[in-house]
Amino acid sequence: MMNIGIVGLGLIGGSIGLDLRTLGYHVLGVSRREQTCQQAITLGAVNQASNELSLLSRADVIFICTPIALILPTIKQLIPIVSATSILTDVGSVKTPIVEGACQLWPNFVGGHPMAGKAESGISVAQLGLFTGRPYVLTPGENTPRESIEKVEVIVRSLNSKVYFCDPREHDRAVAWISHLPVMASAGLISACMNETNPIVLKLAQELASSGFRDTSRVGGGNPELGRMMAEYNSVAILRSLYSFRDQIDEFIQYIEQEDWQIIEQKLSDTEQSRKEFLEHEI
Amino acid sequence: MMNIGIVGLGLIGGSIGLDLRTLGYHVLGVSRREQTCQQAITLGAVNQASNELSLLSRADVIFICTPIALILPTIKQLIPIVSATSILTDVGSVKTPIVEGACQLWPNFVGGHPMAGKAESGISVAQLGLFTGRPYVLTPGENTPRESIEKVEVIVRSLNSKVYFCDPREHDRAVAWISHLPVMASAGLISACMNETNPIVLKLAQELASSGFRDTSRVGGGNPELGRMMAEYNSVAILRSLYSFRDQIDEFIQYIEQEDWQIIEQKLSDTEQSRKEFLEHEI
Repeated sequence: MMNIGIVGLGLIGGSIGLDLRTLGYHVLGVSRREQTCQQAITLGAVNQASNELSLLSRADVIFICTPIALILPTIKQLIPIVSATSILTDVGSVKTPIVEGACQLWPNFVGGHPMAGKAESGISVAQLGLFTGRPYVLTPGENTPRESIEKVEVIVRSLNSKVYFCDPREHDRAVAWISHLPVMASAGLISACMNETNPIVLKLAQELASSGFRDTSRVGGGNPELGRMMAEYNSVAILRSLYSFRDQIDEFIQYIEQEDWQIIEQKLSDTEQSRKEFLEHEI
Repeated sequence: MMNIGIVGLGLIGGSIGLDLRTLGYHVLGVSRREQTCQQAITLGAVNQASNELSLLSRADVIFICTPIALILPTIKQLIPIVSATSILTDVGSVKTPIVEGACQLWPNFVGGHPMAGKAESGISVAQLGLFTGRPYVLTPGENTPRESIEKVEVIVRSLNSKVYFCDPREHDRAVAWISHLPVMASAGLISACMNETNPIVLKLAQELASSGFRDTSRVGGGNPELGRMMAEYNSVAILRSLYSFRDQIDEFIQYIEQEDWQIIEQKLSDTEQSRKEFLEHEI
């Protein structure tokens, strides 16, 4: 059985470890923090753990599960350590800058994005089966060897995830729509409300807010560091989505100014239908 | 015990009837449809039902639970029927045009907005206790007699709702923020996604859409007639909210174009905090 390396033992890294150990892989984990290494061993997420990347010298496939900003620096540090046949893969939520940078450093690289998460983070909430039924997008580079891609695919399928292959740019545009734009739109909604200048109205709005506001504002009230990373690493795609979204808001403004209620009803009828096409695959 | 009239036996009218009957009021219901009248009696939402408003000639307080567009026409039809001491109240989700129009027709009017709902509508989903713990906003007119306001307040409190009093314009601005703007923002998000011109990206976005998209798009994929009514009857407040929201989207665009990631993180930190102020009263 292959040796699997995991760098970064948080929710995602830890959960990958739990599943792969259960499947019989030998899992080597690296975390900067000694305490996390101990916890990963205790929870059964890894066979061995260390705060030194040198532990991974004999890993066949290495999952880089660090924050986005550390993925390329980690690859640079791994290069002098790993063997020429080692395959590197990551779990970052943005793919174009990662795949471009990583493939130049190490052609045996397969970009990856498992789309599973939780409100909480960290090894302590890692769980067996986190990826079951969830999308796992693979974005190999143009010159990534086919057999490396296949090896990563086999491992990722063994997590019971739904595997998709695509170009990194296609991935980034798709997640800009369904993940990054919603964060900005949702945060914009909260900010706009807070700008209400009449304190009586603001207080009343806060008292009356209920499920509609709660759901629409949820992702805009989430992790600020994560939102910043989306904007920073997926800026081209997210700008493209934001421009298009602003056009839609302008359209609504125009229809209301023109008192064209019929077209508003038609538009909402279209969105009612379209939403189903986005969510029909969900349970 | 007072006679209570209810015009419009849907989810809201039916649920008010169920609660008030349980409390011992004599409840008279009017629906255009004979079948709904029968169902209301069978379910115990009313003591008597009719498709003629004349049934309400001896009602002390009448809840008008029709769609917004029919509230003022219903009041006009009630005037020749009811006694001079009858109190009229409504349950419309927009208050300024209703209260202005109604008070001119019938000074003994108290605007109302119970903020409870369900995904389904109609008498068949009416339920006892629907308003328990939910806000119920009362917006009397400037000349509504104090004892009429107090009578409606007593009834509404007996539904175990949280009663708020405010000016109709304050109500409409508040719900524009937390209910109507979210519908437009959420619908705009769905429309923008559907405008993706690359079919591979669109299909991928649909396949990858999950909880973040589901929550943010929920109210924009809801009842189109209801969304149209919000825009039509609350156009001034909703335009005001939409302008402010568009400014927020423009700000995000500007920050990303300027590559000012720090300010984006700060903004998302603020919205994370602000969202709690909107939802802390929720369970």
